[in-house]
Amino acid sequence: MGRNFSSDHVAPACDAVMSAVNKANEGFVTSYGGDDLTAKLQSVTSELFERQVTVFPVTSGTAANALALSQIVPTFGAIYCYEAAHIVTDESGAPGFFTGGAQLIGFPAADGKIRPEQLTRAVAYAEDLGIHHVKPGAVTLTQATEWGTVYSLAEISAVSAVAKQYKLPVHMDGARFANALVHLGCTPAEATWKCGIDVLSLGATKNGALGAEAVVFFDPAMARDFERRRKRAGHLMSKLRFLSAQLNAYLKNDLWLDNARHANAMATKMASGFRGVSEARLLHPVNANELFVVLPEQTVSALEMQGFKFYRWPLHTGESGVTIRLVTSYATPSADVDEFIAAAAAIKPA
Amino acid sequence: MGRNFSSDHVAPACDAVMSAVNKANEGFVTSYGGDDLTAKLQSVTSELFERQVTVFPVTSGTAANALALSQIVPTFGAIYCYEAAHIVTDESGAPGFFTGGAQLIGFPAADGKIRPEQLTRAVAYAEDLGIHHVKPGAVTLTQATEWGTVYSLAEISAVSAVAKQYKLPVHMDGARFANALVHLGCTPAEATWKCGIDVLSLGATKNGALGAEAVVFFDPAMARDFERRRKRAGHLMSKLRFLSAQLNAYLKNDLWLDNARHANAMATKMASGFRGVSEARLLHPVNANELFVVLPEQTVSALEMQGFKFYRWPLHTGESGVTIRLVTSYATPSADVDEFIAAAAAIKPA
Amino acid sequence: MGRNFSSDHVAPACDAVMSAVNKANEGFVTSYGGDDLTAKLQSVTSELFERQVTVFPVTSGTAANALALSQIVPTFGAIYCYEAAHIVTDESGAPGFFTGGAQLIGFPAADGKIRPEQLTRAVAYAEDLGIHHVKPGAVTLTQATEWGTVYSLAEISAVSAVAKQYKLPVHMDGARFANALVHLGCTPAEATWKCGIDVLSLGATKNGALGAEAVVFFDPAMARDFERRRKRAGHLMSKLRFLSAQLNAYLKNDLWLDNARHANAMATKMASGFRGVSEARLLHPVNANELFVVLPEQTVSALEMQGFKFYRWPLHTGESGVTIRLVTSYATPSADVDEFIAAAAAIKPA
Amino acid sequence: MGRNFSSDHVAPACDAVMSAVNKANEGFVTSYGGDDLTAKLQSVTSELFERQVTVFPVTSGTAANALALSQIVPTFGAIYCYEAAHIVTDESGAPGFFTGGAQLIGFPAADGKIRPEQLTRAVAYAEDLGIHHVKPGAVTLTQATEWGTVYSLAEISAVSAVAKQYKLPVHMDGARFANALVHLGCTPAEATWKCGIDVLSLGATKNGALGAEAVVFFDPAMARDFERRRKRAGHLMSKLRFLSAQLNAYLKNDLWLDNARHANAMATKMASGFRGVSEARLLHPVNANELFVVLPEQTVSALEMQGFKFYRWPLHTGESGVTIRLVTSYATPSADVDEFIAAAAAIKPA
Repeated sequence: MGRNFSSDHVAPACDAVMSAVNKANEGFVTSYGGDDLTAKLQSVTSELFERQVTVFPVTSGTAANALALSQIVPTFGAIYCYEAAHIVTDESGAPGFFTGGAQLIGFPAADGKIRPEQLTRAVAYAEDLGIHHVKPGAVTLTQATEWGTVYSLAEISAVSAVAKQYKLPVHMDGARFANALVHLGCTPAEATWKCGIDVLSLGATKNGALGAEAVVFFDPAMARDFERRRKRAGHLMSKLRFLSAQLNAYLKNDLWLDNARHANAMATKMASGFRGVSEARLLHPVNANELFVVLPEQTVSALEMQGFKFYRWPLHTGESGVTIRLVTSYATPSADVDEFIAAAAAIKPA
Repeated sequence: MGRNFSSDHVAPACDAVMSAVNKANEGFVTSYGGDDLTAKLQSVTSELFERQVTVFPVTSGTAANALALSQIVPTFGAIYCYEAAHIVTDESGAPGFFTGGAQLIGFPAADGKIRPEQLTRAVAYAEDLGIHHVKPGAVTLTQATEWGTVYSLAEISAVSAVAKQYKLPVHMDGARFANALVHLGCTPAEATWKCGIDVLSLGATKNGALGAEAVVFFDPAMARDFERRRKRAGHLMSKLRFLSAQLNAYLKNDLWLDNARHANAMATKMASGFRGVSEARLLHPVNANELFVVLPEQTVSALEMQGFKFYRWPLHTGESGVTIRLVTSYATPSADVDEFIAAAAAIKPA
Repeated sequence: MGRNFSSDHVAPACDAVMSAVNKANEGFVTSYGGDDLTAKLQSVTSELFERQVTVFPVTSGTAANALALSQIVPTFGAIYCYEAAHIVTDESGAPGFFTGGAQLIGFPAADGKIRPEQLTRAVAYAEDLGIHHVKPGAVTLTQATEWGTVYSLAEISAVSAVAKQYKLPVHMDGARFANALVHLGCTPAEATWKCGIDVLSLGATKNGALGAEAVVFFDPAMARDFERRRKRAGHLMSKLRFLSAQLNAYLKNDLWLDNARHANAMATKMASGFRGVSEARLLHPVNANELFVVLPEQTVSALEMQGFKFYRWPLHTGESGVTIRLVTSYATPSADVDEFIAAAAAIKPA
Repeated sequence: MGRNFSSDHVAPACDAVMSAVNKANEGFVTSYGGDDLTAKLQSVTSELFERQVTVFPVTSGTAANALALSQIVPTFGAIYCYEAAHIVTDESGAPGFFTGGAQLIGFPAADGKIRPEQLTRAVAYAEDLGIHHVKPGAVTLTQATEWGTVYSLAEISAVSAVAKQYKLPVHMDGARFANALVHLGCTPAEATWKCGIDVLSLGATKNGALGAEAVVFFDPAMARDFERRRKRAGHLMSKLRFLSAQLNAYLKNDLWLDNARHANAMATKMASGFRGVSEARLLHPVNANELFVVLPEQTVSALEMQGFKFYRWPLHTGESGVTIRLVTSYATPSADVDEFIAAAAAIKPA
């Protein structure tokens, strides 16, 4: 049943979110966001982020990212990002589709974090080539990153300071924003607009929702006509109350933080456990709810045979071992972690 | 509360669908459609349509239509349709966006039904202009139509026969497919591929789901790489089980037909009621769950004042009165219809 | 040889333009527009239009129109136009491609001229539907029109006044702008920005160039980043001097007006000649260099047999005859017109 | 006047091409490619490449590349290329625009040549990620490369063999194809389809034309509807005879090879000359008509002051010197090379 570390979206929705959906299923209400729950989401989110924001619920993280980017990047623009960011490798070209052909320009980064000097250099290069090159358009960073690390506030500020210098808006792919937030121990405002983020893809699905994400603009002027983009991409739900209900419940009473805290704790526990597993090597610090571990092929195969679920990570299979990714979630039982570690430790490669 | 005839998606989800969603919320399952409920949906749909189909759940009708069309029409193609089809007037340009610029070519039709000779003429025109014109790409028709009428099987066959002659695939926008089906009293197979439909947008949201539609390809070969299109448009839900659960429940035990039957019955009852309303004029036969009624401005205003919800229909406000649209749904209480008619009849325009 | 009335671009380039191209072929010059001829074109055009304009040479009319529209219409926008405008019927979907899916909304017009009340109504309709509809984006009109008629300045002003009211930019497809200008007998400024035109596709190819058109923005601010659009569409010529040379020669010493005057005179002469042709019927006033004539099938066939070149016009073949289009150009010999009329008059349908 | 090594398109057109354009300017001919010169181009090109090809003249290299790629790559596809290929850095995002968002995936390569194992690895990665990643779509290589090197036939074959294995079409950006060809000393057929190239962007502008490139499909079936793509991108010239005339002259009597031979010889001569320039370092072998030379800042500045034209190359300015690019062409006077080398040798950095 459990023992599934393949992703955080293999988990069901959490009870509070599911209850909210059931409760929303009452009576006739105005569709397309003209309902009370959606109105409430605006105020809940604004309060949470300590300023007037504009928030748009959508059903997937790919939609949130691609819509947000298409809003801030011209079709002839460059999107600066980590070279193996989710938008580059795992969204089947969504940013290109939504922007009508803007170009992803990826920076290398061992830990998934882009650095200000990379941005400086890329913009200088673009300016040197002039109209023959795509125009610097926006910067996007993933928080927590694709490697389970978390940008510090100083790291974000450093990148966004360069972006501001060139008038480039900064997007944050926050599919695992809650996990980053509990790691940082700061407020949502501090983690976003206070360090220069202009628009946030706020994830909920991986952390307890059925299927609900939100695009949050910290400057409402930047959201002009965004609702038209959402509509024409097929991402304006008619019965929008069901998305808003999920998000309201998610953000209420620190549910999102509690869920993320559990997920992170499970990952940290697992990381500790690996200290006792011979030949296991963690590739990165475990800041959030993902672990990337190099293990002997024999160990990995044996764990698969025992029914544990996880992914072998592409392009990281070397002679010295296999890289696997392990993801914990709000719903990961502590016992599952114990079992996994015990199993891994018990396998003695020849 | 009730008394809301503005659309069929102002209603909540029906109990059976909501129960299915709750029931789906169990345990860890493979995401992105690798779950049992999605597998089941494939077999349920195939059985229902009496042949092997490929079905893709999505969350909105706009997504279903635009994705389906982008799959079958080249970016330099023409999409032939009714000139005021939903895809033309109400999807904010989604077909253009998803196809990368294919052109909608609309035919006039008083009752919303395009006719074979219009298609013949349009293709002849395109062929005459050659490469200077968009290439004939596909035909799409809406069933039930935007005017609440329903194509007969013979009418569909006549259009699709011409389409086949020019090797044009035929798409059906079935946002209200169930309503059409109960009106026709035929099988789903008869209403689709047996009269030449190649791909169907199968609606459920307007008829009892929370937010679930499906694209159904009757020839799986035509669906090649469709899953990639869905993914890059942000329409591949990670926790897909929740969409599949809705659709499975919707199609089970004739729930969809029962729901549609009630909606249609309420519309028919309302149409009958209008016979007793002086100066009311129905614009079209009421075949499904929509009515378009011309009433005196004074009557319309009075009904609005009394709290009834409905839309004044654009471009149909003439000197002789105001056109309003009334939509019934699976959830419309019979009493609401009575009240509406009574109220309308009671108003005596000066 | 001659006797070719199929289009104005079957003619060769005129001597003055060809000389200019030869003359431009001297020495090493900066590419991509950094040459003197391109700089000169900016001042020539600004002087001609009596204000500071920004002008971009391109090689085709389709490019000029589609680039111009993509600059002023958002991807989720509506482009209002005549329903059989060149951009709708003869550019293979270029506006959809360049804008990423903006929607062409065509108005009927017997003479090819859209009217202000059509625009008013269309915008009202769009506003009524809100975000579900494409957003009003721009208006485009063709001058001279697709039917060889010419908008009066008052007619243009009336349309652009409505456009201004809704903050919609107005584009003019001036593939045959010179022909319209000599008909109107006014200045280029009066025919464009003084009556509300914001951006002009200025044609030269049909009127004596080898292949040169220009996009002219009357407000340079509106041209922001346009050079990037041109580049990424492959329309920034490296040896741009050859395009600029054509346009400079074209606009010098009234060459363009003289060429257009001859073309129009030939058309007028032909129109007069048709008075002596029994059963010939002109569909529209001949304001520029195109004639649309209804003739008996027998006459049309006989003329074709005799080697005259022209097009049968799509969708206008009725029982009462065949519609043909005849186009004259700067290079049409007067004798060709005489021969054509004589031949047509000599054919006696049974 | 001369002394201009900034690019090969700062040169004028060569006499034979210009004569052909003048000669083409005779009489009335069918537009849009229905002329004799365009027909002749088909046979000339087919003969040259020793098989039936389909050839489409266009006016720019960006158009040729982007149109060709959009024909062979699905909108959800990946285009594998050198990470600093012209299509990545210098076409302002044209491939993304023309394909509707296909993703460029660049491989590092010191000499600009991608290698088969890079392709193997990239496709394996894509297959591992499945529908979440862009679909492997096509491979493109530049010949001569962006660094003035030339792929050997064996190197091309090795890449295309992997491509064939995965059914990926292979495109060659041949903006400087003639320069590569004379270096290789093989036939056009050997340099293209015989080593696995499916479609070629054949450049002429940089090597003596006014503005003429061609897309050549070695399998006419692969060119299906390509003419529609060309048209809707605004790249179908109405007076196409003027493009075809250039290309016919270019390919006649080995003019293109003679022109390229001179350009290459000048580059080789210059490379030899640098042996006598202290502190000059060539970054790459000089196989075609481009040189990348590292020189002291003082030398570079002095050469600029003396009026020599060339580009400082972006991102290659290091402490140890400045990288400049020098390009020779068919029109480069031998004396200009002598002067440049003499000037460079004479400057003695402190």
